[in-house]
Amino acid sequence: MSAHSHDIEEGLDFRPKFDAAGLVTVVATDAATGDLLMVAHMNDEALRKTIATGEAWYFSRSRNALWRKGESSGQTQRVVEMRTDCDQDAVWIRVEQVGAACHTGRRSCFYRKVEPQGGIAKLVFVDAERLFDPDKVYKK
Amino acid sequence: MSAHSHDIEEGLDFRPKFDAAGLVTVVATDAATGDLLMVAHMNDEALRKTIATGEAWYFSRSRNALWRKGESSGQTQRVVEMRTDCDQDAVWIRVEQVGAACHTGRRSCFYRKVEPQGGIAKLVFVDAERLFDPDKVYKK
Repeated sequence: MSAHSHDIEEGLDFRPKFDAAGLVTVVATDAATGDLLMVAHMNDEALRKTIATGEAWYFSRSRNALWRKGESSGQTQRVVEMRTDCDQDAVWIRVEQVGAACHTGRRSCFYRKVEPQGGIAKLVFVDAERLFDPDKVYKK
Repeated sequence: MSAHSHDIEEGLDFRPKFDAAGLVTVVATDAATGDLLMVAHMNDEALRKTIATGEAWYFSRSRNALWRKGESSGQTQRVVEMRTDCDQDAVWIRVEQVGAACHTGRRSCFYRKVEPQGGIAKLVFVDAERLFDPDKVYKK
């Protein structure tokens, strides 16, 4: 292992490895239940704001903008713990989620199972109850 | 919402949205405890092999190669459930992990907490016990 890899994997300096677009992948789980809520991205600024405020900020690739989770919907995330992985290109946050994490109104973005079905994989809804109506919340 | 987005978010066809490099982000959690084990990537072939065999296959960006989890280390992952998220650019697998998920020998890749410390974030080891010695397992 190179000295550099060793520092990244075994060191105590937080040196997030941003991708070519300046982002790290972030996994948010429910601190109470452990359920996976969402997978999103942070840039350096979102990461700093999250650490400084204790609330989750992300960077939206589709809107190309910094975004405080819940700023439109009120469905904020308070960060209970943040971790990083061996090569520091991913961040895990355990959060207290107000309401629903998903913009579709569901608690989690992962509301469909992938199931093999005659050679083709199909999706099956699971835990897919909506906690809010996205058409009302986002006023599309 | 466009008709296309509606199909992706509310439909039952599995249409993974691969990035420019042909990859989707994959989150693997421990089916027994719910703990986050690792964040990695699959290309179309890895995804198909995972679905067909019930064992996790990934695509390594650093080695630019398809890879059956555990093929060097014996630390395989049996997939108990697979889900996808609203926009189908991420996959969640709940797995039965043999031994350690992390190449450093730890159960999870997320063995360090990020903690604010005088304006700078520092890392603190947590759940960092090694289950195997990577120098022996990978014969570096």
